[in-house]
Amino acid sequence: MSGHDIDPSAGGSEGGGGRRRSPAEEARTLVSAITVGYLATVGENGDPWCSLVVYGPTAQGDPVLLVSTMAEHGRNLMHDPRASLALNDPSAPGDPLDRPRITLAGRVAQPEGERRQEALDAHVAAIPGAMLYAGWEDFTLWVLEVQRVRWVGGFAVMDTVSAADYRAAEPDPTQPVAARAVAHLNKDHATALLAIARELGGTRGAVSAVCTGIDRYGIDLSCTGAGQAAAARVLFDAPLQKAADVRPATVALAERARELQARVAD
Amino acid sequence: MSGHDIDPSAGGSEGGGGRRRSPAEEARTLVSAITVGYLATVGENGDPWCSLVVYGPTAQGDPVLLVSTMAEHGRNLMHDPRASLALNDPSAPGDPLDRPRITLAGRVAQPEGERRQEALDAHVAAIPGAMLYAGWEDFTLWVLEVQRVRWVGGFAVMDTVSAADYRAAEPDPTQPVAARAVAHLNKDHATALLAIARELGGTRGAVSAVCTGIDRYGIDLSCTGAGQAAAARVLFDAPLQKAADVRPATVALAERARELQARVAD
Repeated sequence: MSGHDIDPSAGGSEGGGGRRRSPAEEARTLVSAITVGYLATVGENGDPWCSLVVYGPTAQGDPVLLVSTMAEHGRNLMHDPRASLALNDPSAPGDPLDRPRITLAGRVAQPEGERRQEALDAHVAAIPGAMLYAGWEDFTLWVLEVQRVRWVGGFAVMDTVSAADYRAAEPDPTQPVAARAVAHLNKDHATALLAIARELGGTRGAVSAVCTGIDRYGIDLSCTGAGQAAAARVLFDAPLQKAADVRPATVALAERARELQARVAD
Repeated sequence: MSGHDIDPSAGGSEGGGGRRRSPAEEARTLVSAITVGYLATVGENGDPWCSLVVYGPTAQGDPVLLVSTMAEHGRNLMHDPRASLALNDPSAPGDPLDRPRITLAGRVAQPEGERRQEALDAHVAAIPGAMLYAGWEDFTLWVLEVQRVRWVGGFAVMDTVSAADYRAAEPDPTQPVAARAVAHLNKDHATALLAIARELGGTRGAVSAVCTGIDRYGIDLSCTGAGQAAAARVLFDAPLQKAADVRPATVALAERARELQARVAD
């Protein structure tokens, strides 16, 4: 489906396509967005063991764990550094098999010197309560040095990301505010969204438009009109650099759409 | 803390103790309550791999998986049957490290004949959409035959459950309605809860009582009075056998409490 399903005669300049987060960016964004995952480790006889862990990522996206040797995963890591961490956002709606998720695989290492403090800071930034037990004797700080990333965007949408691409990618800085921004636009700015969809999204025949997502590159809209539905994607003028850019960037889109609307009406 | 903190002179007949679900029952209840977990498998070189799976449990509590060999975990299981499934309820409130969770460990097997149909039925009962791909060539039905269970009730509350105890235990039949029943009691029956806490829970000095949990054996209350807080546990007359027993059993507790109250008032 494209915006042209609703009105094939009037495609917007940006249509239904446009730049999206790469699988590497999706992975980095998800790792930064949550703090709970499931860890696979191997026991002394090579048996796999799965357990819940909390983590905070380093600036390179390597998850930092702080685990006790009283826990089975803590003992496993002591004798075999191989580990795999699976993450998905349980707050995302819908079928769990349709939700974005990733698995990171690599080896854990105990950071030393300055790197130890950086790793501890990264963990505590995500898990403030960890300060309480960070100094306990049975707890070990581990950095999971990511060697391989598997990203699943949903049912039958997936990709493998190299460690280099994963480290080079940035988490989307707009993620922390995106859900709230989407809700706000849909609640208070339906007219602006419709103008954006019609003037910039290529769905000129749309009679309603609902925002379904915001990321650093643009916004996604679900439009209806003439008994049809179509997805539209509209890019910001430039990729956003911080969460606070979301508001001015969406205001700028709305203004651009209104100007175009006024020009047509002239 | 016990009910006696609020009024040490007047303990109820059942006090703050009373029968609770065993770790094996907790594990069986959690496995029956949810359908999404994380699976640890091992790759050809013994590397652990963690990934999201959906499952439905057999009558014995063995999770039934239906996975594709196009997925890494599907290929892993083909060459090494060892697997471990970690489950927790992401809808439970609070710190994830404080929430009940379990890890099941064992080996997967492909069920045959009648057992295959039973296993497929168990999976589809939990995951109706699986009917769609159950017949696809790349999908394999696996029963995870549980050999070991680790249950974590919360921070520093944990136990290991043998496969025999796990199989012998029953899922709590009241689990599917417990959360709604708790909300209903707190919303509409505060007076009855207070009477139950005071007359049956041993917290005679309580001025308010909030229900914090219901299971097949009884209810948990959090009571306050005289600037103190205390937990109370009140057992049903007999363990409940089905979800529909929750309503008459709580009504019976309220009536018993009111009768005792009336007797004291005489």
